[in-house]
Amino acid sequence: MQQADIGLIGLGVMGANLALNIAENGYRVAVFNRTVAKTREFYEEAGSLQDKIIPCETLEELAKNIRAPRPIILMVKAGEAVDEQIAALKPFLAKDDIIIDAGNANFHDTVRRLAELGPNDPTFVGMGVSGGEEGARHGPSIMVGGTPESYARIEPVLTAISAKYEGESCSALLGPDGAGHFVKTIHNGIEYADMQMIAEVYGVLRDGLGLTPPDIGRIFEKWNAGPLNSYLIEITAKVLLATDKKTGKPAVDVILDSAGQKGTGRWAAIEAQMLGIPATAIEAAVAARSISSLIKERSEASKAYGNLDGARLANSDADFIDTLERGLLAGKIAAYAQGFDVMAGASKEHGWNIPLATTARIWRAGCIIRSQFLDQIAAAFEGSEGKNLLLAPAFVERMKAGSKSLRQIVAQAALAGLPTPALSAALNYFDGYRQARGTANLIQAQRDFFGAHGFKRLGEEGDFHGPWSDIG
Amino acid sequence: MQQADIGLIGLGVMGANLALNIAENGYRVAVFNRTVAKTREFYEEAGSLQDKIIPCETLEELAKNIRAPRPIILMVKAGEAVDEQIAALKPFLAKDDIIIDAGNANFHDTVRRLAELGPNDPTFVGMGVSGGEEGARHGPSIMVGGTPESYARIEPVLTAISAKYEGESCSALLGPDGAGHFVKTIHNGIEYADMQMIAEVYGVLRDGLGLTPPDIGRIFEKWNAGPLNSYLIEITAKVLLATDKKTGKPAVDVILDSAGQKGTGRWAAIEAQMLGIPATAIEAAVAARSISSLIKERSEASKAYGNLDGARLANSDADFIDTLERGLLAGKIAAYAQGFDVMAGASKEHGWNIPLATTARIWRAGCIIRSQFLDQIAAAFEGSEGKNLLLAPAFVERMKAGSKSLRQIVAQAALAGLPTPALSAALNYFDGYRQARGTANLIQAQRDFFGAHGFKRLGEEGDFHGPWSDIG
Repeated sequence: MQQADIGLIGLGVMGANLALNIAENGYRVAVFNRTVAKTREFYEEAGSLQDKIIPCETLEELAKNIRAPRPIILMVKAGEAVDEQIAALKPFLAKDDIIIDAGNANFHDTVRRLAELGPNDPTFVGMGVSGGEEGARHGPSIMVGGTPESYARIEPVLTAISAKYEGESCSALLGPDGAGHFVKTIHNGIEYADMQMIAEVYGVLRDGLGLTPPDIGRIFEKWNAGPLNSYLIEITAKVLLATDKKTGKPAVDVILDSAGQKGTGRWAAIEAQMLGIPATAIEAAVAARSISSLIKERSEASKAYGNLDGARLANSDADFIDTLERGLLAGKIAAYAQGFDVMAGASKEHGWNIPLATTARIWRAGCIIRSQFLDQIAAAFEGSEGKNLLLAPAFVERMKAGSKSLRQIVAQAALAGLPTPALSAALNYFDGYRQARGTANLIQAQRDFFGAHGFKRLGEEGDFHGPWSDIG
Repeated sequence: MQQADIGLIGLGVMGANLALNIAENGYRVAVFNRTVAKTREFYEEAGSLQDKIIPCETLEELAKNIRAPRPIILMVKAGEAVDEQIAALKPFLAKDDIIIDAGNANFHDTVRRLAELGPNDPTFVGMGVSGGEEGARHGPSIMVGGTPESYARIEPVLTAISAKYEGESCSALLGPDGAGHFVKTIHNGIEYADMQMIAEVYGVLRDGLGLTPPDIGRIFEKWNAGPLNSYLIEITAKVLLATDKKTGKPAVDVILDSAGQKGTGRWAAIEAQMLGIPATAIEAAVAARSISSLIKERSEASKAYGNLDGARLANSDADFIDTLERGLLAGKIAAYAQGFDVMAGASKEHGWNIPLATTARIWRAGCIIRSQFLDQIAAAFEGSEGKNLLLAPAFVERMKAGSKSLRQIVAQAALAGLPTPALSAALNYFDGYRQARGTANLIQAQRDFFGAHGFKRLGEEGDFHGPWSDIG
């Protein structure tokens, strides 16, 4: 039998779909799963793609069945399982082979794993893959961290299996070692913020305007035909329009309002903090999920304070729905500005040279936050890499138009008692960022007063201390 | 000469003042500084306290001059300097001696340092000290992490030098190893949020109502006589009323609006993220300082978007000043609720058993956030340790009264384009926390749609998946 072009370890939902995607694109793939039964089942169900798949029951068999130099994708649970898999695999690999971790690794682990490999070990690539089950099967967005040599060897297959946006592949080398997984982490952080802002608007429509899920679904459907057009808006419409089979109620009405999180949103927030770059919209989204999980406390608090269900907006005319559309877009711009700024900061800090325009381009299709909007971001970063999105001329115009609506939403929701943490964080970021004279002069005065930290004077060099001691 | 009761290494501003405080309280203190000249200078300037101070020029001399078992306070720059000092000191110490790190250590380092000491090494105590220069000299708040045995041996001197609130000492053992430094980190995080919310209200008064620094100073002076009474409100009034000698202008008007940060606010945010506990008001405050430092970008953005200077509130009647007072208090309650919740979470995570009521009590005097308000918090935690402050009956009443004002501030500022990131985060936290039916059901539906993550149904056990595939 002809050897495989590539190997893949881990036939969970993501791994299995990625393997089928590879096979369908004409590449022969050798697959392995710790549980042999899963490998067999996968092969049996592969149908017409079986002739491109080599099911292997041992790692040795897997290695033998791949043409050297061997690229092997790991799609196992992030964390220790990756280290174990690398250790188990190494004896069967040669120096030129490439282990590609395609899981949701923390980039610090990716940097460490690469550093731990010796000069005669295979090399290592950290690869972020976004798009869920569907993306893995029919074209994900692929964010690669590694050497140009490693990438060159896997580029053909990655290009083939990746999503395409107007014919352009959504796979790219974004920098060395941890750059790919870092970008994936920030992608997920932005995804958290995006989803949270959508949920906040849903809350305003539901509780503030009293609309039903199908009503709201139709609004999102309409918005998906406008500037908000994106995968997340599209699926929001779909889930809002779905009916629960068991009860006949709208599906969202039978789902517990407690959101799970697997940690990448939190990582994004932590990395932003480490870099000292504001990511408040992402932080607000992570916090909102945490608060959502406090079912018992929320119930107790709602009794203590009076329930918010049914809190209505003072301003609830039909125009307000357009306000919500424009404001959501403005909130999204500010949140994405934060996310890209964190990547720019990390790129500088770690010497990665992450190409921001390219990053936006490979997010235009395949991944969860895919949208036309990212095409506009890519255009904005062309020639102004590393600059905050809020300063890109095209976005200045969009924010000028949208921020008025965002103000209305934040203000009306605050008065009605409806939480809009991510939208509020986005607005406050924007308003802080565009304020020539802020209020940190007071903070510096306080810090100098109690801790003699000193301050700078407007338009002067040097450090100064206040006249606090001789205040009358 | 009689041996000293205690040693102190590091005669910077904090160390020197702490040594004088110890001497003044009748304890003999042996002091050492890396630069001998500084030790001599300190001794020369100690005046009538000289007979309680033993200046030492070597670590050996320091050790010899302290009565065994020797407690030695380190007040050196947090980080590597502490490790170096421990290493340099160890040869001169015995098993029963205690090294007390009184710097702003990251608690992870404190845990590590304790773990690194062998069975025959001296023991180690991590001690958070708050109160700045003035506190160190006349009574700081002292947050201790260590064993009960270690604390028992240093308690008399710590009790003597600590601040007193109505006669009660503001020093306490809060838990083992890193507990003291962790609590100090969260203290600083809360301090960031408190200062930022004050700065936001200052911004509303300055830009929204067009008041001058002395006008605003007098308002804070008045507030300091009411429920907001606290050290930070008191010094805010003072710095706003201070005049710059050089120009004759209000001092705050000549200070650059770019805030420094030494990292503890960021640590607080990172630890909260690690624990999965919302600390959005602290995060907003840290982000606001970061944004404040982007002088050039803010100037560029203000030109692109139009300057905010002079943005006036729509509602600017005199009552609005009372609204600001009540709203600031409400914001403060929510921010402190977050901070104490992070401590409760860390206490659980690390098995520290941090007594929250005691923590609030030792913050009532000596530290930067000292206030009557903390006496109310201490009372709330008596008998309901670990419960969120927002659920304590006395605070339910306060928040019911104050949250209406907080809504007004957030709404008016949003409409006027004035940033209130921490106040907004506080309000949104409150509104999310008290919402019986949130909007995370939509997020769970989205996550199940694109990632098959599953969801729980209202009032049912088990995991479910949506009907998404057969949506009409």
